[in-house]
Amino acid sequence: MAMTGVLRPGHLQLRVLDLEECRKFYRDVVGLVDMGTDAQGRVYFKAWDERDHNSLILRQADTAGVDFVGFKVLDAAALNELEAKVRAFGLATERIPAGEMSETGERVRFQLPTGHLFELYAEKKKVGNGLGLVNPPPWGKDAERGIAPTRFDHCLLYGPNIAANKKLFTEVLGFFMVERILGPKEAGEPEIGIFLTCGHKTHDIAFVEHPEPGKLQHVSFRLLNWDRVQRAADILGMNRVSVDLSPTRHGVTRGETIYAWDPSGNRFETFSGGYEPYPDYEVITWTFDEFGYGLDYPTGKLHDSFLGVVT
Amino acid sequence: MAMTGVLRPGHLQLRVLDLEECRKFYRDVVGLVDMGTDAQGRVYFKAWDERDHNSLILRQADTAGVDFVGFKVLDAAALNELEAKVRAFGLATERIPAGEMSETGERVRFQLPTGHLFELYAEKKKVGNGLGLVNPPPWGKDAERGIAPTRFDHCLLYGPNIAANKKLFTEVLGFFMVERILGPKEAGEPEIGIFLTCGHKTHDIAFVEHPEPGKLQHVSFRLLNWDRVQRAADILGMNRVSVDLSPTRHGVTRGETIYAWDPSGNRFETFSGGYEPYPDYEVITWTFDEFGYGLDYPTGKLHDSFLGVVT
Amino acid sequence: MAMTGVLRPGHLQLRVLDLEECRKFYRDVVGLVDMGTDAQGRVYFKAWDERDHNSLILRQADTAGVDFVGFKVLDAAALNELEAKVRAFGLATERIPAGEMSETGERVRFQLPTGHLFELYAEKKKVGNGLGLVNPPPWGKDAERGIAPTRFDHCLLYGPNIAANKKLFTEVLGFFMVERILGPKEAGEPEIGIFLTCGHKTHDIAFVEHPEPGKLQHVSFRLLNWDRVQRAADILGMNRVSVDLSPTRHGVTRGETIYAWDPSGNRFETFSGGYEPYPDYEVITWTFDEFGYGLDYPTGKLHDSFLGVVT
Amino acid sequence: MAMTGVLRPGHLQLRVLDLEECRKFYRDVVGLVDMGTDAQGRVYFKAWDERDHNSLILRQADTAGVDFVGFKVLDAAALNELEAKVRAFGLATERIPAGEMSETGERVRFQLPTGHLFELYAEKKKVGNGLGLVNPPPWGKDAERGIAPTRFDHCLLYGPNIAANKKLFTEVLGFFMVERILGPKEAGEPEIGIFLTCGHKTHDIAFVEHPEPGKLQHVSFRLLNWDRVQRAADILGMNRVSVDLSPTRHGVTRGETIYAWDPSGNRFETFSGGYEPYPDYEVITWTFDEFGYGLDYPTGKLHDSFLGVVT
Repeated sequence: MAMTGVLRPGHLQLRVLDLEECRKFYRDVVGLVDMGTDAQGRVYFKAWDERDHNSLILRQADTAGVDFVGFKVLDAAALNELEAKVRAFGLATERIPAGEMSETGERVRFQLPTGHLFELYAEKKKVGNGLGLVNPPPWGKDAERGIAPTRFDHCLLYGPNIAANKKLFTEVLGFFMVERILGPKEAGEPEIGIFLTCGHKTHDIAFVEHPEPGKLQHVSFRLLNWDRVQRAADILGMNRVSVDLSPTRHGVTRGETIYAWDPSGNRFETFSGGYEPYPDYEVITWTFDEFGYGLDYPTGKLHDSFLGVVT
Repeated sequence: MAMTGVLRPGHLQLRVLDLEECRKFYRDVVGLVDMGTDAQGRVYFKAWDERDHNSLILRQADTAGVDFVGFKVLDAAALNELEAKVRAFGLATERIPAGEMSETGERVRFQLPTGHLFELYAEKKKVGNGLGLVNPPPWGKDAERGIAPTRFDHCLLYGPNIAANKKLFTEVLGFFMVERILGPKEAGEPEIGIFLTCGHKTHDIAFVEHPEPGKLQHVSFRLLNWDRVQRAADILGMNRVSVDLSPTRHGVTRGETIYAWDPSGNRFETFSGGYEPYPDYEVITWTFDEFGYGLDYPTGKLHDSFLGVVT
Repeated sequence: MAMTGVLRPGHLQLRVLDLEECRKFYRDVVGLVDMGTDAQGRVYFKAWDERDHNSLILRQADTAGVDFVGFKVLDAAALNELEAKVRAFGLATERIPAGEMSETGERVRFQLPTGHLFELYAEKKKVGNGLGLVNPPPWGKDAERGIAPTRFDHCLLYGPNIAANKKLFTEVLGFFMVERILGPKEAGEPEIGIFLTCGHKTHDIAFVEHPEPGKLQHVSFRLLNWDRVQRAADILGMNRVSVDLSPTRHGVTRGETIYAWDPSGNRFETFSGGYEPYPDYEVITWTFDEFGYGLDYPTGKLHDSFLGVVT
Repeated sequence: MAMTGVLRPGHLQLRVLDLEECRKFYRDVVGLVDMGTDAQGRVYFKAWDERDHNSLILRQADTAGVDFVGFKVLDAAALNELEAKVRAFGLATERIPAGEMSETGERVRFQLPTGHLFELYAEKKKVGNGLGLVNPPPWGKDAERGIAPTRFDHCLLYGPNIAANKKLFTEVLGFFMVERILGPKEAGEPEIGIFLTCGHKTHDIAFVEHPEPGKLQHVSFRLLNWDRVQRAADILGMNRVSVDLSPTRHGVTRGETIYAWDPSGNRFETFSGGYEPYPDYEVITWTFDEFGYGLDYPTGKLHDSFLGVVT
């Protein structure tokens, strides 16, 4: 199999301050499919074009942020093999039993050097995208309920020591680096942002160097195209959602994007665009002085909230 | 004729601080067609899909801003009739002889209550849009050189006493008001912004109440669609142009827009979208407290430069 | 008023073979807003962004086709004046009393040289587009129910003697010709297709020379953009609607279009694009041998059903 | 590495009847980048966003068609390993020395059961996409020269015994099947079309059962979006290219597509859209009686040329 080991971002558990308010928000505004509640009271969502049971999980908590991120691997053998490699890399791993999350198999969990809990799993119930497997239409009703992204695409996490994360993801987990952001010249241009994929996307996960561990900058959902970014922007306006960045083009990854905050203050992105990098591609570098264009290509402007506000 | 009297915005003369720099900018970045220089040294441009000889004129000057705006009328009879009405309204008019502007007939000029010089004319040389009149393709090379708007669409002018302008445009010049912005409740909600059309567009000209007379907020060029707004945004970024507002949706007029400044500090807009109002339509009103959504529908945010910077 | 006399296409009454089936079709597939039934059993629809009460009327009949087309005029004075001109042109006119059609004022009806019944009227109840007149969002729920065009845009009618129609529309009713199609060289290149507007659209009505009088080639509804044409195409496929022409670009008018048939065999178009012609524009001509590109610009192909099937 | 073994379609050598005519066509109409000629007289092209030296090669010949298709593998070790597996599968392999193709390393060639020559290679000179690796703009001049696809995306090949190809690609080369088309019920619904990927695209290669071996149905180039499909369609019309299928939606893979023929009669596709399948996804099946919707979702129509004309 050419695609093997780690396949894709599978789930992300988000802490929210008011579960019912956020449930409504992710269902009616973001337009995810509500997959129900588990015994712990957590709420499960999937994006309409995902075929597995869930991808976003909300947990009521006193602080916003991310509990953990999980990636799906090809099969049980890959799970075992990857766990062994992670241990050999020097990280402790924990097996969380199947069923602890709804419709999800056993998970191998470990803590990243940046402080985030990261999981691998091989099984999640296949529920389909609602279009069927025989002569399916290209989309259905759920594709126009709220913003209606097609999938959980990636997340951007903030924490210390992203160099160690890079080593783990590229040498152990089979990712490669697509783009990176450098720090200031006077600091020797260290890598302060790295964008990694396990497939041929511009990013399946990204990290930015940050003193506090375990922080979430944003969780990102994919849209079909720039017209859908506009539609997302309109829906955010209609619902008076707090928006961090107007529709724009990222220089980094060429994404077409809009950022906003959920009612608990977790930032999310809905975006389209990008390109198709492969493991033999050379890395693209954004220098510190031009990073304004990396963030907001039309204007070249940085804004404080994007750089500083995390959960 | 159902379309009679004043037809459309025809030309706008802009003052620039460095003629050659601005000529390059409007030709290579905005992507207008350079139609040459006149004996006074003024530079003429047209947008690719316009059929008359010119629409934007640049004049070297010590201060940026707008010299005058001209609207094309149906024919010489309409010109005479409108001049008489303008005089009856109480404004002095001046006839500027044919040929004073390249390839342009006699103009009737008068000063608006807001201090702007406004012109009517019936003749400008028909040069075509370069696609021919027989079996034309839908577009050609000029449609992809720079931002390449299709036409000079409208302008937004700032000055005092827009109520008098409204009276002139609606009662004398045959325009109707499509949308308007109200001032604060505590001030009695006066009309502080008015959007007027002589056809069935969301605006052919717009005015905002402002203490200084004769000011330009922006000159606007039309794009085909939201994808072309993104393309315009990319081109602005590639050329490191100073951008005032990222791609966004206006609540007012539903326009899909991006604003930037030319090298002399004159703001211009490239936009698409809108809708098709008719003279029997009721006016749409934006209240003062919700005007953030009128300007930037996704975010609801006002920003100081948009409100305050004019030339 | 610069826009005066005839303003725009206002309503079209269509004959259908199965009223309930067609009601469902125009409501759920085309996505018009069902405005109810009148005492005669006729069903009324409006497009979501129209502000008047109705634009498409369905009448149960034994044959498909068009009963009549109505254009809205500015006011009662315009109605009287236009009626007098039509009579002076030599056509008999009939006054149909207010209320004969739901929420519609008195209509002046006459028969075009091509055999079609044509109406003018000044009053139709203003019901709004559902978004309100104060701080409206750019669109609402109805904009995504079915294909959801924004308006009844134009119709293409087939009949004999379009030269007389041209004379009537351009010399009496205030339209101007935007584009035209010529017949074969060996026949002297007569005008066999004419595209006319009373505003600054590429067409508000069009006629093609045809031996049988009073025929309908298509009724056309406007979409926002090419992405919405794709969406319309998807919805037609999802509903297994009989489609006459895949999404394509017209050379004539630059429209972006898809054609299909309603359950009674009446052809309708959903389209976007075009450009903004004015009365001072020179006419664009399509020659007979290149008309394939006029119809289907990418392929240059004519197909029999488009040319021959009318109701 | 999660992406390992076979990475992507890398090159395809096309036989053309008039090399200079086709060189102009692929350069000026399709808008590929001309990378020069080799000692054998073959002409090399790359798509603008590809980073390797070439992807389409034209060879002057007496008959049109495809000489061979090559896929890039991760590295030399992968090449050796895959060659061993292919031999173990029972196919003879041939090593073609580095340099036989311009800027391309050693290739392992073998004949597919369907009669096509297929190659694997690990090295091709990295020339970049012209935007640089540091602070790149999202696109440049080449992105708007002709149709300007971003990449060689896939090809559809016709030949006998696609069941054996499926076995080879899925069991030996690491591809997985994304969608498939079944034959008629009365024939037992054999798989007559299979769509395979080595990454997470809807197809990197596809095969249709056909009595003659080694045939090309089309070579496909990727566009950014549906607006670019329209632009491609316009350019085909402007150049009077012979078009096989108007812009439409495929049911199969959800692609947004237009098909045409090069001057030698080789069919090519320019398309956008699709979705992101992964190896754990269940296969989507198109039944024989609904395949019209698989090909042309809006209309459900099959047309003879698409089914029958191959080179």
